[in-house]
Amino acid sequence: MSVAVVGSVALDTVETPSGVNKDGLGGAAMFFSLAASNFTRVHLIGVVGDDFPQEHIDLMASKNIDLDGLEQVEGKSFRWTGKYHDDINMRDTLDTQLGVFETFQPKLTDAAKNAKYLFLGNIHPSLQLDVLQQANADFVALDTMNLWINETREDLEKVLAKIDCLIINDEEVFDLTGERNLVRGVKKIQEMGPSIVAPKKGEHGCLLFVENKIFSAPAFPMAEVVDPTGAGDTFAGGFMGHIAQQNSIDYDTLKQAVIHGSVSASYTCEDFGPERLKTVTTEDITARYDAFVELSRF
Amino acid sequence: MSVAVVGSVALDTVETPSGVNKDGLGGAAMFFSLAASNFTRVHLIGVVGDDFPQEHIDLMASKNIDLDGLEQVEGKSFRWTGKYHDDINMRDTLDTQLGVFETFQPKLTDAAKNAKYLFLGNIHPSLQLDVLQQANADFVALDTMNLWINETREDLEKVLAKIDCLIINDEEVFDLTGERNLVRGVKKIQEMGPSIVAPKKGEHGCLLFVENKIFSAPAFPMAEVVDPTGAGDTFAGGFMGHIAQQNSIDYDTLKQAVIHGSVSASYTCEDFGPERLKTVTTEDITARYDAFVELSRF
Repeated sequence: MSVAVVGSVALDTVETPSGVNKDGLGGAAMFFSLAASNFTRVHLIGVVGDDFPQEHIDLMASKNIDLDGLEQVEGKSFRWTGKYHDDINMRDTLDTQLGVFETFQPKLTDAAKNAKYLFLGNIHPSLQLDVLQQANADFVALDTMNLWINETREDLEKVLAKIDCLIINDEEVFDLTGERNLVRGVKKIQEMGPSIVAPKKGEHGCLLFVENKIFSAPAFPMAEVVDPTGAGDTFAGGFMGHIAQQNSIDYDTLKQAVIHGSVSASYTCEDFGPERLKTVTTEDITARYDAFVELSRF
Repeated sequence: MSVAVVGSVALDTVETPSGVNKDGLGGAAMFFSLAASNFTRVHLIGVVGDDFPQEHIDLMASKNIDLDGLEQVEGKSFRWTGKYHDDINMRDTLDTQLGVFETFQPKLTDAAKNAKYLFLGNIHPSLQLDVLQQANADFVALDTMNLWINETREDLEKVLAKIDCLIINDEEVFDLTGERNLVRGVKKIQEMGPSIVAPKKGEHGCLLFVENKIFSAPAFPMAEVVDPTGAGDTFAGGFMGHIAQQNSIDYDTLKQAVIHGSVSASYTCEDFGPERLKTVTTEDITARYDAFVELSRF
């Protein structure tokens, strides 16, 4: 089965202790699509400006990504500039230029409407609601951020009531629920709608709550993290890609999907932007999945 | 096989969001011993003052703990007072009264000298060195803290060169090596001596590095942490207790030991001081070990 994703496609300028990547291919929906396309067909819904390099479009088109829903319109592409600290888990946003993304009104193609699996990337919850109304998906997962939690809570709660799965940073569980304890916080989120909640903990891995069951996935220990940008988005891509490929949301599949998400995220961190991810093979994915088995088996 | 431990036995006054525990039984060696005694015989080497309540000694004596090496001398027992934040992972030390612990000169009993397994609790590294000279252990693990890392580094390096295993908080890896990356930091520690390093990450679990192999253990997700005091020490106790019980340091045993350490630590957090731990049964340990299997299996 295929998966549809709605979100940003951007040009990122990133500085990390390993160096600088200027105007690199970025954006949550791009990272998601690249990771998910290793598992299944992806329908990308997004927008870029007329300044968007053709090579970036060619790269995405060379993968199992349907770009019929990627509009290219007059204006500037979304640009994000960030700098990571020596502690690579911390970063500052130096500049955000929304450009054509500011007035983005997602329009789903027929293929995206009919995708059985849908990922609502981190955009205004009123747009996420609008996409939900266009879509016929059986299983919907969502990302959000503290901006929407704090500024547009009412809309966000409407979306949460309609979705199946929330993929969220662990500190956002506190923003959303006021609970510092993750177990209690997730319980509150489940009461808002999604029975499946996956709090991401960066270098500490990820938890998966499915109703009353809890699974804990490690992060892949890395001697060097070149650029963590997009790690969370590729986690979601690997997670949803595996679910769509298996066409199942049983507990075992969901747990394996978390590991596939973690595999994608770990490769993403090995180089700037999508550089490493774009050359990842099925064999690479299998090898790292096996490494996760070794890492956590006792 | 039995295990010997050298370290503090104390009276703790602790405030957490769940309440206050005044003059409770505390100290690293006590927590270690209580956890390890669920697996094997423990020889405790420590000191308390003449103000130390007999009921605390009776409790320890009722377990599989040999107290021949616990001196009771004239003066005040070691007292620690701490307060945890609403974010239970953070705490402030409000008061430390070393009392008779200030002039503690560990003297190993014959049973402790001949224990095959030895844990050097968090005391001045020159005392740890002195204990090492008295002991005949085959396998030695060590705890330390930022005070010794910063103030008595030369002595600490001498101890590190002689031990097999370092159990350490993850932030202390940075203090000790200057490396923010845990994989690189542990490699530097291994070059200082111990081939086995277990960086504890609190609510994020624990890693185990054995030469070039890495194992990642989850923490047990808890809806309420009543009092985390002693969690790290009972982790070490469960870890060493299992190793001594199995009389093996092969990789599989070490991984299972990390899980048994995590089991002990999780029970410790369920109530103040050693309240929960002192009633834990073999069945409780097996049940939670199985829960760790469920938590991490995919």
